[in-house]
Amino acid sequence: MKTALLPLALAGLLATAAAAPPKPAAQPASPKTAQQILAGSPATDWRDLDPENTLLMELASGQVIIELAPRFAPAHAANLRALARGGYWNGLAILRVQDNFVTQWGDPDSEDAAKARLLPAGAQQKLPAEFSVPIDRVGKAARFTRLPDVEGWAPRTGFAEGFPVAANPKTGQAWLAHCYGMVGAGRSDAIDSSNGTELYAVIGQAPRGLDLNITLVGHVLKGMELLSALPRGTGAMGFYDKPEQRTGIQRVRLLADVPPAERPALQVLRTESATWTQLLDARRYRGGWFVHSPGYIDICSATVPTRPTPPAPAQAPK
Amino acid sequence: MKTALLPLALAGLLATAAAAPPKPAAQPASPKTAQQILAGSPATDWRDLDPENTLLMELASGQVIIELAPRFAPAHAANLRALARGGYWNGLAILRVQDNFVTQWGDPDSEDAAKARLLPAGAQQKLPAEFSVPIDRVGKAARFTRLPDVEGWAPRTGFAEGFPVAANPKTGQAWLAHCYGMVGAGRSDAIDSSNGTELYAVIGQAPRGLDLNITLVGHVLKGMELLSALPRGTGAMGFYDKPEQRTGIQRVRLLADVPPAERPALQVLRTESATWTQLLDARRYRGGWFVHSPGYIDICSATVPTRPTPPAPAQAPK
Repeated sequence: MKTALLPLALAGLLATAAAAPPKPAAQPASPKTAQQILAGSPATDWRDLDPENTLLMELASGQVIIELAPRFAPAHAANLRALARGGYWNGLAILRVQDNFVTQWGDPDSEDAAKARLLPAGAQQKLPAEFSVPIDRVGKAARFTRLPDVEGWAPRTGFAEGFPVAANPKTGQAWLAHCYGMVGAGRSDAIDSSNGTELYAVIGQAPRGLDLNITLVGHVLKGMELLSALPRGTGAMGFYDKPEQRTGIQRVRLLADVPPAERPALQVLRTESATWTQLLDARRYRGGWFVHSPGYIDICSATVPTRPTPPAPAQAPK
Repeated sequence: MKTALLPLALAGLLATAAAAPPKPAAQPASPKTAQQILAGSPATDWRDLDPENTLLMELASGQVIIELAPRFAPAHAANLRALARGGYWNGLAILRVQDNFVTQWGDPDSEDAAKARLLPAGAQQKLPAEFSVPIDRVGKAARFTRLPDVEGWAPRTGFAEGFPVAANPKTGQAWLAHCYGMVGAGRSDAIDSSNGTELYAVIGQAPRGLDLNITLVGHVLKGMELLSALPRGTGAMGFYDKPEQRTGIQRVRLLADVPPAERPALQVLRTESATWTQLLDARRYRGGWFVHSPGYIDICSATVPTRPTPPAPAQAPK
């Protein structure tokens, strides 16, 4: 196990603006594959889904599991919980699929006051914009793991609680980054015009130009291919021209409202773990088929792995 | 029109390793939209398809237009021409769609000597690896337009003849970059094991770690959504488990072999043009809905636009 990165990883975002970034590990003689690293990962490097922070979306094609990001978008996370609890999205639809950009879902009649779906009890019509948070909210508490690799979109990047995070010590702000599979809340021109009723998932090259322009609320942990492989809409911005082209949403529930026996048994790799650090190294330094290693990754290069929850170890008889 | 970048753009890759990158333009007071820039583009900023360097792939769902990159992969480009001329892919299939990675097509029976499709006359079984070219092949002749923006994957980046290009003055090499829509030639373990019979297109976050590991042969100019919206394969690496899950390829022709009246009338924006430079600036500095501009782009942030060939101007009567 490579340990050189661990102390640096824990240094987090709290260092001053002038701090040098941590250095990446040197190229190993025989890099492990991702499969080998995952097979050797300790159980403590994995976490269970948090039922209060997970949405279960059901399409005819299968389940999409979305993890919320309350540390970065607390008001939106609370509203998404209320919307799911009130069955807001049940029977609504995927309205837009724009190639190499986003898949978006919500109420097809949202602009028609007479037909628009009403918000359920507890859901707010108006929320603050949550484009970024103070940098000190994403420190040790969020177990921020800083990437040593330098990129052009933001002065600092890394992972916190499973999410790709960018930060700028000069402005004192940190924010979620628009990587593949991230989920955001659509807005109109006013920055505080999103309330989470209309959501989108990134299905192409990371549109990092959206960072700091819109509230990201979470990411897809499972079922991403059910959103990314849909026919592209041929209307403006990839909206479907005809209602029959839309994909219906059967229902969306907060995982806490799903009977425990029916909940997907899924675990997520902790991004503060040694296993995650090793996986990132395995993408910087390739073996096997590869003849060249980039010696580099960025926050959108790797997606946090999930796995079926392993069976509980047998209890010793008393 | 912003002109500050033009002389720098023409400086190309020929400068020495120590040369400072060109500076990006300053943020304009009221940025133009991409639509406004394209609407005002002069006809000379557009080029026609080159029939000798364009493949027309026909699926039941529509046409996919692939532009070859003979400057970067001359042996592969020649072989792709011969394969298309000989009808090699006609009746073959899309074999693999791996989410957030690639769609791949070729001969389902390529590993079965008794059933594998034979190469047509003129096509070579064995080609050299074409992972990179000497940097001086991508200079003025290719009208290389260097990006001022600095990224982590390569010391130098820009665009040449419509393609995203990376380069390293220290190694003296330049290469095509794995951005969305780029097309490459699948290979086995041996670096010279690709001959263009099996091709892939990038359908997700740019897998830049593949750069310098495999031969890129071109890019999809039109019909990308026919490759990206296919159901993902559930076998290892996204291969389809069952033959009936595959999408058939009706035929692939070299555009030169298509009767002129049937050729798609498409133009491509020149990446050495002022219009392209302005489009990149419009992504660095956003107006309208955006409240924050990244002040940055990378070579995979923008896709080269195409347009229907405008009607020829009316001739004056003689």
